[in-house]
Amino acid sequence: MLRLSTPGYERFVQAQQFEVNYGGGEANVAVSLANFGMDSCYVTRLPKNDIGDAAENELRRYGVNTEHVLRGGERLGIYFLETGASQRASKVVYDRSHSAIAEVAPGMVNWEKALDGAQWFHITGITPALSASAAQATIEAVAVARKKGVTVSCDLNYRKKLWTREQAEKTMTQVMQNVDVAIANEEDAEMVFGIKAGETDVHAGKLDTAKYQSVAEQLMKKFPTLKKVAVTLRESLSASDNNWSAVLWDGSTFYQSRKYAIRVVDRVGGGDAFGAGLIYSLVSGKAAQDALEFAVAASCLKHTIPGDFNHVSVAEVDALIKEGGSGRVQR
Amino acid sequence: MLRLSTPGYERFVQAQQFEVNYGGGEANVAVSLANFGMDSCYVTRLPKNDIGDAAENELRRYGVNTEHVLRGGERLGIYFLETGASQRASKVVYDRSHSAIAEVAPGMVNWEKALDGAQWFHITGITPALSASAAQATIEAVAVARKKGVTVSCDLNYRKKLWTREQAEKTMTQVMQNVDVAIANEEDAEMVFGIKAGETDVHAGKLDTAKYQSVAEQLMKKFPTLKKVAVTLRESLSASDNNWSAVLWDGSTFYQSRKYAIRVVDRVGGGDAFGAGLIYSLVSGKAAQDALEFAVAASCLKHTIPGDFNHVSVAEVDALIKEGGSGRVQR
Amino acid sequence: MLRLSTPGYERFVQAQQFEVNYGGGEANVAVSLANFGMDSCYVTRLPKNDIGDAAENELRRYGVNTEHVLRGGERLGIYFLETGASQRASKVVYDRSHSAIAEVAPGMVNWEKALDGAQWFHITGITPALSASAAQATIEAVAVARKKGVTVSCDLNYRKKLWTREQAEKTMTQVMQNVDVAIANEEDAEMVFGIKAGETDVHAGKLDTAKYQSVAEQLMKKFPTLKKVAVTLRESLSASDNNWSAVLWDGSTFYQSRKYAIRVVDRVGGGDAFGAGLIYSLVSGKAAQDALEFAVAASCLKHTIPGDFNHVSVAEVDALIKEGGSGRVQR
Amino acid sequence: MLRLSTPGYERFVQAQQFEVNYGGGEANVAVSLANFGMDSCYVTRLPKNDIGDAAENELRRYGVNTEHVLRGGERLGIYFLETGASQRASKVVYDRSHSAIAEVAPGMVNWEKALDGAQWFHITGITPALSASAAQATIEAVAVARKKGVTVSCDLNYRKKLWTREQAEKTMTQVMQNVDVAIANEEDAEMVFGIKAGETDVHAGKLDTAKYQSVAEQLMKKFPTLKKVAVTLRESLSASDNNWSAVLWDGSTFYQSRKYAIRVVDRVGGGDAFGAGLIYSLVSGKAAQDALEFAVAASCLKHTIPGDFNHVSVAEVDALIKEGGSGRVQR
Amino acid sequence: MLRLSTPGYERFVQAQQFEVNYGGGEANVAVSLANFGMDSCYVTRLPKNDIGDAAENELRRYGVNTEHVLRGGERLGIYFLETGASQRASKVVYDRSHSAIAEVAPGMVNWEKALDGAQWFHITGITPALSASAAQATIEAVAVARKKGVTVSCDLNYRKKLWTREQAEKTMTQVMQNVDVAIANEEDAEMVFGIKAGETDVHAGKLDTAKYQSVAEQLMKKFPTLKKVAVTLRESLSASDNNWSAVLWDGSTFYQSRKYAIRVVDRVGGGDAFGAGLIYSLVSGKAAQDALEFAVAASCLKHTIPGDFNHVSVAEVDALIKEGGSGRVQR
Amino acid sequence: MLRLSTPGYERFVQAQQFEVNYGGGEANVAVSLANFGMDSCYVTRLPKNDIGDAAENELRRYGVNTEHVLRGGERLGIYFLETGASQRASKVVYDRSHSAIAEVAPGMVNWEKALDGAQWFHITGITPALSASAAQATIEAVAVARKKGVTVSCDLNYRKKLWTREQAEKTMTQVMQNVDVAIANEEDAEMVFGIKAGETDVHAGKLDTAKYQSVAEQLMKKFPTLKKVAVTLRESLSASDNNWSAVLWDGSTFYQSRKYAIRVVDRVGGGDAFGAGLIYSLVSGKAAQDALEFAVAASCLKHTIPGDFNHVSVAEVDALIKEGGSGRVQR
Repeated sequence: MLRLSTPGYERFVQAQQFEVNYGGGEANVAVSLANFGMDSCYVTRLPKNDIGDAAENELRRYGVNTEHVLRGGERLGIYFLETGASQRASKVVYDRSHSAIAEVAPGMVNWEKALDGAQWFHITGITPALSASAAQATIEAVAVARKKGVTVSCDLNYRKKLWTREQAEKTMTQVMQNVDVAIANEEDAEMVFGIKAGETDVHAGKLDTAKYQSVAEQLMKKFPTLKKVAVTLRESLSASDNNWSAVLWDGSTFYQSRKYAIRVVDRVGGGDAFGAGLIYSLVSGKAAQDALEFAVAASCLKHTIPGDFNHVSVAEVDALIKEGGSGRVQR
Repeated sequence: MLRLSTPGYERFVQAQQFEVNYGGGEANVAVSLANFGMDSCYVTRLPKNDIGDAAENELRRYGVNTEHVLRGGERLGIYFLETGASQRASKVVYDRSHSAIAEVAPGMVNWEKALDGAQWFHITGITPALSASAAQATIEAVAVARKKGVTVSCDLNYRKKLWTREQAEKTMTQVMQNVDVAIANEEDAEMVFGIKAGETDVHAGKLDTAKYQSVAEQLMKKFPTLKKVAVTLRESLSASDNNWSAVLWDGSTFYQSRKYAIRVVDRVGGGDAFGAGLIYSLVSGKAAQDALEFAVAASCLKHTIPGDFNHVSVAEVDALIKEGGSGRVQR
Repeated sequence: MLRLSTPGYERFVQAQQFEVNYGGGEANVAVSLANFGMDSCYVTRLPKNDIGDAAENELRRYGVNTEHVLRGGERLGIYFLETGASQRASKVVYDRSHSAIAEVAPGMVNWEKALDGAQWFHITGITPALSASAAQATIEAVAVARKKGVTVSCDLNYRKKLWTREQAEKTMTQVMQNVDVAIANEEDAEMVFGIKAGETDVHAGKLDTAKYQSVAEQLMKKFPTLKKVAVTLRESLSASDNNWSAVLWDGSTFYQSRKYAIRVVDRVGGGDAFGAGLIYSLVSGKAAQDALEFAVAASCLKHTIPGDFNHVSVAEVDALIKEGGSGRVQR
Repeated sequence: MLRLSTPGYERFVQAQQFEVNYGGGEANVAVSLANFGMDSCYVTRLPKNDIGDAAENELRRYGVNTEHVLRGGERLGIYFLETGASQRASKVVYDRSHSAIAEVAPGMVNWEKALDGAQWFHITGITPALSASAAQATIEAVAVARKKGVTVSCDLNYRKKLWTREQAEKTMTQVMQNVDVAIANEEDAEMVFGIKAGETDVHAGKLDTAKYQSVAEQLMKKFPTLKKVAVTLRESLSASDNNWSAVLWDGSTFYQSRKYAIRVVDRVGGGDAFGAGLIYSLVSGKAAQDALEFAVAASCLKHTIPGDFNHVSVAEVDALIKEGGSGRVQR
Repeated sequence: MLRLSTPGYERFVQAQQFEVNYGGGEANVAVSLANFGMDSCYVTRLPKNDIGDAAENELRRYGVNTEHVLRGGERLGIYFLETGASQRASKVVYDRSHSAIAEVAPGMVNWEKALDGAQWFHITGITPALSASAAQATIEAVAVARKKGVTVSCDLNYRKKLWTREQAEKTMTQVMQNVDVAIANEEDAEMVFGIKAGETDVHAGKLDTAKYQSVAEQLMKKFPTLKKVAVTLRESLSASDNNWSAVLWDGSTFYQSRKYAIRVVDRVGGGDAFGAGLIYSLVSGKAAQDALEFAVAASCLKHTIPGDFNHVSVAEVDALIKEGGSGRVQR
Repeated sequence: MLRLSTPGYERFVQAQQFEVNYGGGEANVAVSLANFGMDSCYVTRLPKNDIGDAAENELRRYGVNTEHVLRGGERLGIYFLETGASQRASKVVYDRSHSAIAEVAPGMVNWEKALDGAQWFHITGITPALSASAAQATIEAVAVARKKGVTVSCDLNYRKKLWTREQAEKTMTQVMQNVDVAIANEEDAEMVFGIKAGETDVHAGKLDTAKYQSVAEQLMKKFPTLKKVAVTLRESLSASDNNWSAVLWDGSTFYQSRKYAIRVVDRVGGGDAFGAGLIYSLVSGKAAQDALEFAVAASCLKHTIPGDFNHVSVAEVDALIKEGGSGRVQR
């Protein structure tokens, strides 16, 4: 997907240039994993034109294997982004209809081949939201992955500008039949499956962490293949200041991470950075609490980097966990 | 007026580029009103050259009617702006002498015609500060407005680099004879008319809101045509962090707004955004407290937008009032 | 030295442009002193090419006398800088080996002539860290300065990427034989001479100021020529927020400065700005407490200015001391 | 339409920023006419989002009346532009499907009202190429214009990436039934109607001007409402150097313009600038040769201005005609 | 003077940034001479504000001595510049009235002191054009220079936007009483003194070089102190392509330079670069033909450099003269 | 290698930003081949830091396999570039000493493994010029390549700022013992081996093509493994305008290419683009004349693209050959 964002804090009506970034949920996870040193392969569909080339190049640049990217379709999906500040929220204008990936359909990707030798398959709730055929292709993909014994993670990622809650529930219920690890933000479970964290108000700038154990339990009960449920908890004090933490439920223990008070540079991709951190940690065999802390620290750092991608190494995440983010210059 | 500002937080001696913005007190109010969907007409005098054209274009761009703009005079007034941060204040170097508007004189503008059909006329204390003839033209304008039954608002806007307190008092006393709604910041009333808010120290980063009722009462007593007095209260913790609120006195009730803790992107034009918010609210028939909250919320948002103009819609202001500025991405 | 920094908060792997600044410890002090209106002369060695010309020009631009700059050697030292934010620290990649100044050797500079008529000579611990010959040249310089009765200040400035603690201790012990005023940050004395401020953890974001009296006392005891020891105390809450203060010990009284909570724009050169503020104050005959406050206020302002140099005037520093950094626009 | 172009001469795969311009055939003509001081009104359909707002603002900025612009539909059409140089041609990637204007349909625009009081109506062959319904809407528009006695001009503007020659011929034949003034470039007539200028090879960098009389005659014969046919003749020596001239046939006389050797800054919109120059001239009552020279000179200047719009005044065009383009600084 | 120019080839109405340069006739000459390694001192009057500081810094940066610069007055003169291309001429909007230097008056500068030890004094016809008092100050300056035995050069530099031909003739006639070397462009002598080069049309893109001998002879006859007259000959084929040469008359021989066909990057300051090249050459004792070739080659190179200043060394000018401008990369 | 270039046509002393590109002879060839759709693998040595990462990423971005890149050594080589215009040549300041690749030594790269399965190995005369050990490593590489039956091409690429003609001759004579295809520019053979093309003066802007047959013959005679010799012929009219063609000698026939008159955007990498075009053509089995035309056309296009890399596809090169570079917009 092509992200076109206004420079500085300009509003759309002021902008004479757009910053060009290529990203999107699964792409962000793929780049982050490659930055962590893992073999990372991204499957999508890009138009056969120069804009599609540029998107593929950007993934290759950061070490992602693009050999299974399909080239075809009409256009690359676009989202316009205006970065908020203080009381003014960031604003997104979607222009994703009729994109190459929105028109993906079951059978287009040879999942048997693409997943050959894979250890983990990650999907988000954004892709099935793009169109009915994309939803079917997503359902197909997770089914093949499961059949092949590949661990499947899914980030619910509800996007109200792409589909209704009813549509989301129907599709995601099917997707979740084959998922091992579920990832959600503080309101996804409620939006998609109506699972509430008690009376929590996500606009209040303060979340009741303990209540998310119940959210995780309910999700796990609803989808028996789930082995782990992770929920990121963003306390949005303003567009400039966020508190960031997460919880993890493995069916028996409820883990809570450290909470980071972040001055936000670019929060887009924060959830994806968390997902990548979690996948890396679990594949690497970290214990649950360590995995959660790694994922939260990794995604904390993402908030300080412009663009969708999380350009941090394992060593940098470890340093944050160990030294606590005092931000002293390294020289 | 042409605003030339250094990029980022560069100081003047470092700058190799200037950002170009066209603005100024009344222009900012006009654009803000147009953004709120009102018919907004701006009257000024611009030189008959390409720089004057660019200034007029910028107003048209945002929907302001410029048919009464006079074209003539020597030059467009300039101010150079260096954006401060933390303990370093923003710095302004004025280069406004001999500007086309500074050389405006009574009789130049056909106010009878310009104000035909107008509902509201807004003026600031900056224009009469530019020159003796501009002061006379301002006095003329408000007199005609009053005669035609147009509601007149005036933002005191004291600028110490443009005139002395004595000059300001003399002229503004005349201007205020025909004003219905006065707007001032936390120190304007003292600077211009010697009306103090008790012992308040505007540099202390904390203002005693209650004391401003007395300021408003004294103003209203001094100028009997006044029906409302609004005072914006900026608690400047640093160039990067301001608290922002306002009060309104309608002769019988003292209204206090919510207070916003703002991370400042660009505070220039904050007062004008308040003025526009107030005018919009009063023209729209909002109740006093609602009008005040709208004006404060609108001007809070201005602080997050680069340039002089407040590019926000009524819906965005309403959302801030309702949702409280948590700055969650809208997508 | 050439500083190449990524724009905005970009990481190195993202950057398509580098911002160009010329600076470095002693150069920063020289420019700051020139900005304070003092006659300031900078001695270094620059390659005889266009990059060396550009470096020399930048110093001249800000009023520094460059007549004693040697031109020769292979290359200009470079450091690549990535500006951190929030939990992500700024990152420096040094590329300084084989630079013209690293290859300076005793006898190359005619210190007798360069220091003729000088009142003060300032050196940092970075220059001797560059190479063995640069270390010898530094030792030579301070010896000549002392012989000529020039007051010598030295900023310990330990750089772990340039030399080991053992190397630093050995060389700096020699340098310090001829120093009148020592400047250090909160960890330099420990890094170079093993002098600890009790149990203070510089990563904890909170420093125990009182403990630095003992650090100063120990330094003064170790180096009997010392008349004053100043220590800057940075509490690094994050890369975006620092507390900044300093202490001064004159052998009998322990002075503590006001503490500033800073939103950081660019913290590189903060220590040099402190050094320049202290030198200016002492040369100007300020009392110890006033000198300390001036130096801290000056360096506080540096943190708000992009680049290495501290572009502030004496009047601006005095205003911060007097008005307290509320950051109100001056217009 | 949103034009996203790479900065400098960067190729798409290199670009990290896109320059933002809003334009398109008829919009370019409208802005040019407004710059000539005429009342100019633009009718199109823009999505009801911030990107649509920005497009409308850009037209208002340059004085175009936008009151008849429809707001609705899914998205704003986009074209990506890479500016060529020397032997490398400029490259366009279209992303215009499903745009608000592509989905315009007969009956959506109230042409009776939009054309009330209009003197001239201009359309290009790009709009009907966008979709079948847009083609019908175009046919509707010219029919209403004719019925109301408004002069109609049509720029054939064949775009091979939007439709086939067969589709173009079928639709444009209908459009041309109600056209008074036809405008074409050196290959449009052949592409759309198979009308050849003898053996001319448009890639050869040299055109046989005289042969275009026959093209004009054939067009006029085929479409009896035509009163004038103008053909622009671009001799493309390279992407950097073009020769530019035009011919005009009024049914009895064949007029040939001066030829300009242009160093190209931005040739997009050159044809539209010609159209606007011709319309202005004819509305102003210029004689045929003068009208042609004005149109060619105006569009020559367009090639020197970045973006789609021709920001030149009547005085500047007249000066070029009179002084011959020596490019001496005016100071 | 502050030059604010639009980036790329943007027109004023498009610009959102201005490039900042500080320059002006005499300043340009001073910088060029410093770049040639000469002691160069610039005398002017700058306002006592940050914009004035920036202007002075820029001169210091390039090695010009600014110790005789007066600081005072209201504002720094500004000119807005739009760089032309091909048939579109560059455009200048002056905003120089009431500038600090325009308000200079006889007696303000201590010329006795400023010229102490000077070998050469250079003035242009722009300074006396700024105001009557500036004209008087110029007349005073050249008189003092002559009295002290300093060689005086004057570049006629007629600016029609600053004064009339009558005003220019009256003042320049007085100035020229004390001038040793006159410099003019192809039309200055006619504009100021009515001395024509026969029938030459400066807009025709081709000049008859031989006719300028008569111009020089007439000038020398009119002003008996003249020892040399140099005339630069610009054949402006377009704003992008100029031919550039010059002639020199020393009272007995007429020297003609090589002619350079230049692709123009920035032609502002071309004449000043010629003046500096001539002064350098004559001070260095070059023979007349060599001096002329050096001056023309130096100023040819200026056309390839953005900004007013000619950043070239003596070695680079010599290389052009010797190798002929083939532009092969030096690596 | 890191290329730091000034923006626009700025000189080094003016630049406040540098454009960042990663390139260098063999890297440029590798990227170009990947752009032509070939499997392309680049072998070099990069430092183990973020700057080295960025360099490797840039190659991956454009599809080059970097698995054999060694990571180690002190620094990445840098060259500073100032782009010339018209009579001002581009200027290069090298800062390449002590770079990771300069310190490469025989045995470091496992050439047996790196060349496994390779069809072609390309080297330039720049790498052995970096240091004595790099020269030995180059000699080692070509020897292994020959032994493994890999075709070897070598671009002589003489750089006078890196070594003397004597050093070059000695080393290159050894390298050339194992080369199949030699590539040189119009002066390389003379510079390195003293083989002259008769009286040709490369500064004269016109080359006598026929004379290069003798150059090729002499080279082939001197180095019996050579099967083909290609020479690029640049006629540098100025830094802005070059004529570009090439010749090829295969031992029996002398082929001459079409000549392109190029308006130069960025000529760095032009020779490498030729090399890549030739390798692609020969690997693809094109006939000699076709191969030469492809290589010349490909490298002609390179001159229009900023940066070192030639971002063109086979289709684009073919189109230039077929359509002749008229530069008509493709839309």
